[in-house]
Amino acid sequence: MSVERKLESLGLVMPDIEKQYRTNPTGARFRSHLAHGNALYISGSIAMKDGTRYMTGVLGKDLSIEHGYEAARYAALHCLGIAKFALGDLDRVTQALQLIGYVNSADGFSEQPRVINGATDLLVELYGEAGMPTRAAIGCHGLAANNSVELVLTLLFSGTEVRSPLAREKIAAAR
Amino acid sequence: MSVERKLESLGLVMPDIEKQYRTNPTGARFRSHLAHGNALYISGSIAMKDGTRYMTGVLGKDLSIEHGYEAARYAALHCLGIAKFALGDLDRVTQALQLIGYVNSADGFSEQPRVINGATDLLVELYGEAGMPTRAAIGCHGLAANNSVELVLTLLFSGTEVRSPLAREKIAAAR
Amino acid sequence: MSVERKLESLGLVMPDIEKQYRTNPTGARFRSHLAHGNALYISGSIAMKDGTRYMTGVLGKDLSIEHGYEAARYAALHCLGIAKFALGDLDRVTQALQLIGYVNSADGFSEQPRVINGATDLLVELYGEAGMPTRAAIGCHGLAANNSVELVLTLLFSGTEVRSPLAREKIAAAR
Repeated sequence: MSVERKLESLGLVMPDIEKQYRTNPTGARFRSHLAHGNALYISGSIAMKDGTRYMTGVLGKDLSIEHGYEAARYAALHCLGIAKFALGDLDRVTQALQLIGYVNSADGFSEQPRVINGATDLLVELYGEAGMPTRAAIGCHGLAANNSVELVLTLLFSGTEVRSPLAREKIAAAR
Repeated sequence: MSVERKLESLGLVMPDIEKQYRTNPTGARFRSHLAHGNALYISGSIAMKDGTRYMTGVLGKDLSIEHGYEAARYAALHCLGIAKFALGDLDRVTQALQLIGYVNSADGFSEQPRVINGATDLLVELYGEAGMPTRAAIGCHGLAANNSVELVLTLLFSGTEVRSPLAREKIAAAR
Repeated sequence: MSVERKLESLGLVMPDIEKQYRTNPTGARFRSHLAHGNALYISGSIAMKDGTRYMTGVLGKDLSIEHGYEAARYAALHCLGIAKFALGDLDRVTQALQLIGYVNSADGFSEQPRVINGATDLLVELYGEAGMPTRAAIGCHGLAANNSVELVLTLLFSGTEVRSPLAREKIAAAR
């Protein structure tokens, strides 16, 4: 079964990355992804669902571990949305190489791994062993727009064609 | 116009990286940069101006977003100072691959992207599309000497010659 | 003198990485390491001594800089334990490429570099110049199980054989 079919069977809908990159509330300039050799670098990704930010808040204050787990799952889906845009086919992903998961954490919260499990569990459900990256789960102090989780993921892929990255361009009025 | 001429026209003066690496208040041992293939890894860089740290403090407490933006701009200039030292010519940079921007953040501050925009705006002013990296903007909880922003930047470059990195060596008395 | 002999002469005992990866209190799924070309990516590593977590707590509140330094030293030893598992021989390490050191920091703590020096000092004691990586020292807000330091290290190595990474698999009952 293809990775996209597996996503469907899990009831997960790929986010509309192009639509998302057309909005730019902070006037930022960066790209969705860049390939270097057969490594795909993906920009910091947050949880989106139905086109809006999902499960925002601070772990250990506003959100339970289960909420954070869900946020990490959807943030990983967001990464996969970019990978799909870049590679055309999610089955071209050969290995999740590195995942750094930042968890927006209240004072004293130390369950970052159980939160980031939401991301790695999804990757393993889809890719098996190839979905198990090297990983770190770090408590951070604030994320854009009060997001709860941000993932920085690097994937390895087969083949050579990579679609030009989406550019989040500065919007004059935004700053 | 060369990248260095563009920097001049923006009124920006490249930091003296060699002088900076000769001082070592924390007795640290690390290098300014290392090349791996055609990727240049640059050590965490903070804002310097006229040889001293610039715009120190915590976002959301001591500093406004505009101050943080300025700090990120100068931290990016610091990265470019290292790239100039390493590559000899800033026009050898072919792509900004990945930028992780850490913003020293007070409780509840969530405008990290608008701060890190100071770095990516400068890169785009100098390099156009090639200056747009993949990016993450992360709120952190403390940086060396109360710096407000620290950037970890990886660049791609053309050609093969790379100058030996500056080594920040341990100074016995420093610890 | 081999790197392992140097470790012995420093009185440092390599952690039992295999034993450690068999336990999985948070039900996480990730790998100890992955090789990409001649770069070895190592998962976020914390301080272990005699099979248990070592020097836990928050810098600037529970722990002194000296304690944090010690934690960083043992976290680097943990990384080397993974490198030994992966490469068979620590003398195959040719360069420490990048070290991102996260320091669990109390409000106002800004001595992250003096903490992470514990890691880079050990690498330099063992490898000389080749042990000096590019580096960043970042204050974070919470780490798994109240660990004080977490390191994300990338090494370059010679030769081609790399042992299959240890997988921290999910344990059904753990979540």
